[in-house]
Amino acid sequence: MTQRVKDAIRALFWPQSIALVGASPNPQIIRGRMVEAILEHPFPGPIYPVSRTHSTIRGLTCYPSVEALPQAVDLAIITIPAAHVGTALESCAARGIRAAIVISSGFAEEKSEVGEARQQTISDIVARHRIAVLGPNAEGFLNGQMPLAATFSPTVVHFEGELQPADSRGAGIAVISQSGGVGFSFFNRGRPKGLVFSFVVTTGNEAGLDALDVLEYLLEEDNTQVILMFVEGFNQPQRLRQIATQAARQRKPLIMAKVGRFEAAAAAAASHTASLAGSYQAYQAIFERYGIISGSDSDHMTDVAAGFAYFSGCLPLGHRVGILTPSGGAGAWLADQCEAQGLSVPELDRSTRDQIDVKLPAYGTSRNPVDVTAQVIFELGYAPVLEIMAASPKIDAILVAGSLAHPTYVERDLEALMRLGQAIKKPVVFCAYTRAHPRAVELLAQAGFPCLENMSNAARAIKAMADYQTFLEAFDPTDDKPPARTKTWPTLDPDIPMYTEHAAKQMLSQLKIPCPPGRLVTSAEEAVAAAAAFNSPVALKVQSAQIPHKTEVGGVALNLVGTDQVASGYEAMMNETRIHAPTAKIDGIRVEPMAPPGTELIIGIHRDPDFGLLLSIGSGGVLVEVVNDLVTTPLPVNPHQAHRLLNQLHCRPLLGGVRGRAPADIDALVELLVRISDFALANALALDTLDLNPVIVHDCGLGVTISDALIGTRSSDPSSSMTCAPADSTHESPWRMNDV
Amino acid sequence: MTQRVKDAIRALFWPQSIALVGASPNPQIIRGRMVEAILEHPFPGPIYPVSRTHSTIRGLTCYPSVEALPQAVDLAIITIPAAHVGTALESCAARGIRAAIVISSGFAEEKSEVGEARQQTISDIVARHRIAVLGPNAEGFLNGQMPLAATFSPTVVHFEGELQPADSRGAGIAVISQSGGVGFSFFNRGRPKGLVFSFVVTTGNEAGLDALDVLEYLLEEDNTQVILMFVEGFNQPQRLRQIATQAARQRKPLIMAKVGRFEAAAAAAASHTASLAGSYQAYQAIFERYGIISGSDSDHMTDVAAGFAYFSGCLPLGHRVGILTPSGGAGAWLADQCEAQGLSVPELDRSTRDQIDVKLPAYGTSRNPVDVTAQVIFELGYAPVLEIMAASPKIDAILVAGSLAHPTYVERDLEALMRLGQAIKKPVVFCAYTRAHPRAVELLAQAGFPCLENMSNAARAIKAMADYQTFLEAFDPTDDKPPARTKTWPTLDPDIPMYTEHAAKQMLSQLKIPCPPGRLVTSAEEAVAAAAAFNSPVALKVQSAQIPHKTEVGGVALNLVGTDQVASGYEAMMNETRIHAPTAKIDGIRVEPMAPPGTELIIGIHRDPDFGLLLSIGSGGVLVEVVNDLVTTPLPVNPHQAHRLLNQLHCRPLLGGVRGRAPADIDALVELLVRISDFALANALALDTLDLNPVIVHDCGLGVTISDALIGTRSSDPSSSMTCAPADSTHESPWRMNDV
Repeated sequence: MTQRVKDAIRALFWPQSIALVGASPNPQIIRGRMVEAILEHPFPGPIYPVSRTHSTIRGLTCYPSVEALPQAVDLAIITIPAAHVGTALESCAARGIRAAIVISSGFAEEKSEVGEARQQTISDIVARHRIAVLGPNAEGFLNGQMPLAATFSPTVVHFEGELQPADSRGAGIAVISQSGGVGFSFFNRGRPKGLVFSFVVTTGNEAGLDALDVLEYLLEEDNTQVILMFVEGFNQPQRLRQIATQAARQRKPLIMAKVGRFEAAAAAAASHTASLAGSYQAYQAIFERYGIISGSDSDHMTDVAAGFAYFSGCLPLGHRVGILTPSGGAGAWLADQCEAQGLSVPELDRSTRDQIDVKLPAYGTSRNPVDVTAQVIFELGYAPVLEIMAASPKIDAILVAGSLAHPTYVERDLEALMRLGQAIKKPVVFCAYTRAHPRAVELLAQAGFPCLENMSNAARAIKAMADYQTFLEAFDPTDDKPPARTKTWPTLDPDIPMYTEHAAKQMLSQLKIPCPPGRLVTSAEEAVAAAAAFNSPVALKVQSAQIPHKTEVGGVALNLVGTDQVASGYEAMMNETRIHAPTAKIDGIRVEPMAPPGTELIIGIHRDPDFGLLLSIGSGGVLVEVVNDLVTTPLPVNPHQAHRLLNQLHCRPLLGGVRGRAPADIDALVELLVRISDFALANALALDTLDLNPVIVHDCGLGVTISDALIGTRSSDPSSSMTCAPADSTHESPWRMNDV
Repeated sequence: MTQRVKDAIRALFWPQSIALVGASPNPQIIRGRMVEAILEHPFPGPIYPVSRTHSTIRGLTCYPSVEALPQAVDLAIITIPAAHVGTALESCAARGIRAAIVISSGFAEEKSEVGEARQQTISDIVARHRIAVLGPNAEGFLNGQMPLAATFSPTVVHFEGELQPADSRGAGIAVISQSGGVGFSFFNRGRPKGLVFSFVVTTGNEAGLDALDVLEYLLEEDNTQVILMFVEGFNQPQRLRQIATQAARQRKPLIMAKVGRFEAAAAAAASHTASLAGSYQAYQAIFERYGIISGSDSDHMTDVAAGFAYFSGCLPLGHRVGILTPSGGAGAWLADQCEAQGLSVPELDRSTRDQIDVKLPAYGTSRNPVDVTAQVIFELGYAPVLEIMAASPKIDAILVAGSLAHPTYVERDLEALMRLGQAIKKPVVFCAYTRAHPRAVELLAQAGFPCLENMSNAARAIKAMADYQTFLEAFDPTDDKPPARTKTWPTLDPDIPMYTEHAAKQMLSQLKIPCPPGRLVTSAEEAVAAAAAFNSPVALKVQSAQIPHKTEVGGVALNLVGTDQVASGYEAMMNETRIHAPTAKIDGIRVEPMAPPGTELIIGIHRDPDFGLLLSIGSGGVLVEVVNDLVTTPLPVNPHQAHRLLNQLHCRPLLGGVRGRAPADIDALVELLVRISDFALANALALDTLDLNPVIVHDCGLGVTISDALIGTRSSDPSSSMTCAPADSTHESPWRMNDV
């Protein structure tokens, strides 16, 4: 992102002066609600309403036009009818205004020619004048610190109190949302939990800035430590990889809801915006690779953000949780939630227990959950036992399950809690089993502790933090470096739309990818001769670019032994396939020795519309019917990534050697994954799909066998290529404004 | 439950008059908070404080003793120190008082001899006088309708407003909790959602009534339609089966959190109460069989209860959901949640879409989610499109994702919504994507719609209702009828602690359970002769009651062919086992023909400490390492239950014949499950474990093979038997008060 671009966006989000183009005194309409919001949460700089019909609005002097403004403001907020937006935006640019929000509707969301044309006009102005534009059809944004409530969202207009809580020790959370309603719902739910929102930005139709532009900019804001995103689809999804890498480098977690998980939802998203919802699996692969936390609902996302906002400087170093509670029932329930989320609740060490025990009555327990009893909270508050627990080497984080329906105990204990908030170097999250009293939430925020109300989410917040720590420890941005090109590697011919098994195996063999020997034969005699040469039971497989699924047309025969079986097998197969696929051009039949036994896997590369080439691996054989065991990652796949991928497989234990089986040849499998990744990247323009199904992984030292293979190509179309790793990509421009 | 018992409990929960034994004017202490709660939510009958130190408390005349009371009240609420509770309770009984709550602590929860003795005193008085006692160490209860707030819970004492909302169309929800804090947290969270709580009952140490007694009683209350339970462990878990059957007959859903899912949580529960947390798997089996809904956290449970409270009379007849929203983003997100929960969001039918389309602008969609746009809600409200959607044959329930941060649209639309609340015969659940305004919640409750705030939970509520409908359709209480006893069936000898494979197979063969033929041999010559007679590759397996795991000691050899292999196999095995198990008494070696191929399963029966004999079935072979695929159900297992069980297996598709395989012999498998269930019940006192591992299921018509088998017995101890189906059990007494 160039300095000029940054400056323009900074003018948008941190304006020193603003013009309200289309301002109205009527709070019943959007144009009036904008004015109300900006005055209710008073913007510290000059505000210039632009109105042809009013001379003053709420005491502010109005100006008849953008041209008439007394200064070139930093930000123009445009709420006039769609038909006039283009002209107004031109005027702004001419006046030297560098940033604008277009609130007005009536653009591409209307799916009409007029709407599309109006939106194109905005894009053209953006390109021509390098102006930072949010919208159109956006609900605006808020800058919580300034404050600036440049939005008509009722959750902000009618919010009583400061946009940011006073004295919270929590770091800033930014929201970036393509949906206005959902975007501000995070503020609506999170602000009463004492969360500090640095920004809430809704991007609308994204004719100018899109969600990734905003993300890239906000990552550099010091007052933003955590980012919540709600996304229906990205204009340039590949940029997510670069920007997520940047976020990981800065240790700023992204918590993202990408809607369109299932077909119906995808259809809804498509009809809502112009963007096509990318496939769920592809997004999950990107999320996994870059440590993006998948958000499931508003409460989940705000609660996980709360954990990071307070503890990003001291993430849990493991998954062991201590639970402190005055209610045995609530503690046990919270322990269940922890275990269900993959956390452990270990018994505390003797020394810690001894220190706690002297404070407890007979009906309490220091085991973990530590049930201190209501009596002890009444007498001592939470702090003394919390301090002891925090020092235990057995736990990495603490959850406090308290009633908190009244602020009494927190109030009384505030000084000690304030001290502990600075002293304890492990996450401590309070979770009320009743609803929490607002004053208790506020005081805990001052002391440095988030106060949640949902046990599942409290456990998920700790889990997400511990997982993120694990991710950061292993994350290596150089994993995305494309491999050095090997000139001797074979090149796919895009004019061959489908490489048959035989052709594919010939190509793969050049990569030192171990395919079984095999011969293409065109007569029963040749087949018999080939089989005899292998001196092993053989498989016969028909070869035709028009027959991708050989079994369905009777094109596979296994375990044939001896002249009779091979010869009659050949004849039968030719007859069968001619019946079932009469128009297919048949190259011949491949004769291959049967593979030795092993674990069957499916390995493939396919082209995702959002993220280009992705590599997948999954359980093969009967397991396919029993368990959904397919994991996916973007290219390139180096040995480190290959191991990470394999470790996500349900069937991973089978490869490790269980129940008396020998361990499988993991090294050979990793080598295979890396080689096909390199091959795919070397043929990134031509490759469309690569299917190895099944791959048989043999015992350690015996390698792998590619039983079947198929390669599909596509015509080269460099303009649409989305194939390579981000560092290598043509998408270096951080946003489209750079083009100009 | 006898009439006398019912009358006593009725006096407890619906008293006409109450005595407060130990009342205090000081609201800082529990004894004073009780008085405050009862006066704040004014009990309609006479209230008599019993106090030795005060003549009046808050204007109520005090009495110096129970004996001095002007009448035998229905209910005594006892808050005096533990040491005096026994005497006071005796006085109550002598005075003719039929019900009491003991709030005081200092009993079994203290894990001291004195405490245990005091609790035993209460139990003795209960047994002697047939008095209905809640507690000790209980947080009391509330009857929302009466009202009676017989509790010191701060969530009730300080609750402003009526305990029940005015004019809600929702049915009553009862809470039964062993934890006081958690019990009232449901009220604390659910009441602001407009839910009607008929009762909140906390049972404390359960010296008198326990959670199942309360459940059994409340099921007969007309004002209670849904029951929320929080349970750490039951005194008589087997009774749950009877009572849950009764709940299903009455179509009253139980939503239950049973804590102790994982070890740590179980340890916490054990140290909190005297009860031992039963195994998670066993409870899940009971929940599944009786349609009990497993609750995960307070929000989840109250939200699911909300759905049932409004729509138990018109549960969804399928899993298809329509979504109505003014926000495309929120609608798409909610659709994701629905799909994630196993609901579908199908495109609406043409006729419905046509009716909706005429009301929508170009940027809305009637597809589903139906995005009517904010503009349409502003102009028309929710009702008109809701009415059209409700008539669609494509959907079974409707979710409305609205902002609802302000009550305006609901207020304006109230009349139409009131009409629809009565007219629509499908569940319609509102879900605010912001926090919902209390007035909006209240008005929707009056119209007959629950208003939730959590999208995941909204989807889970619909899912739970649709599942419950499916459960009710299939539920047959006679499934619990034990089978007719077959006199000719073999009887286990409890003096044989372990039946070896050979002995077990002999016994199973008598049940017409198909075991492969096999011979026990004690020399290599006999082994060779036996193998020759089978004319098939054979397995050799060592037989010793001291060697339950034969493989580990080299006691299994497979696929032996011919004299040499069999003879040397025999000798090698005898040597190996003598080395690895030198003290084992070896009966000999079983020679058995190798089983034909098929799908491997594990089938077993074991004795759960809470629920007695349970039958489990799971994937065998390598699948065990890949997927946790074990399902469990209580006995008896009839063909209907056997099919239900099989349908829960992940590997069920494998048995149906996939990928060119023949379907497996499901009939034979079902027959096997039913027979071992019958056999286990016939030997319910002696049987401890039965393991068939693996069972090989062959192609349809070819039956099953029990490859290995083992039966463990236990000494007969009729007093501890928990073995049979509830209808057959000795636990007919609905509660312990019946004993007297």
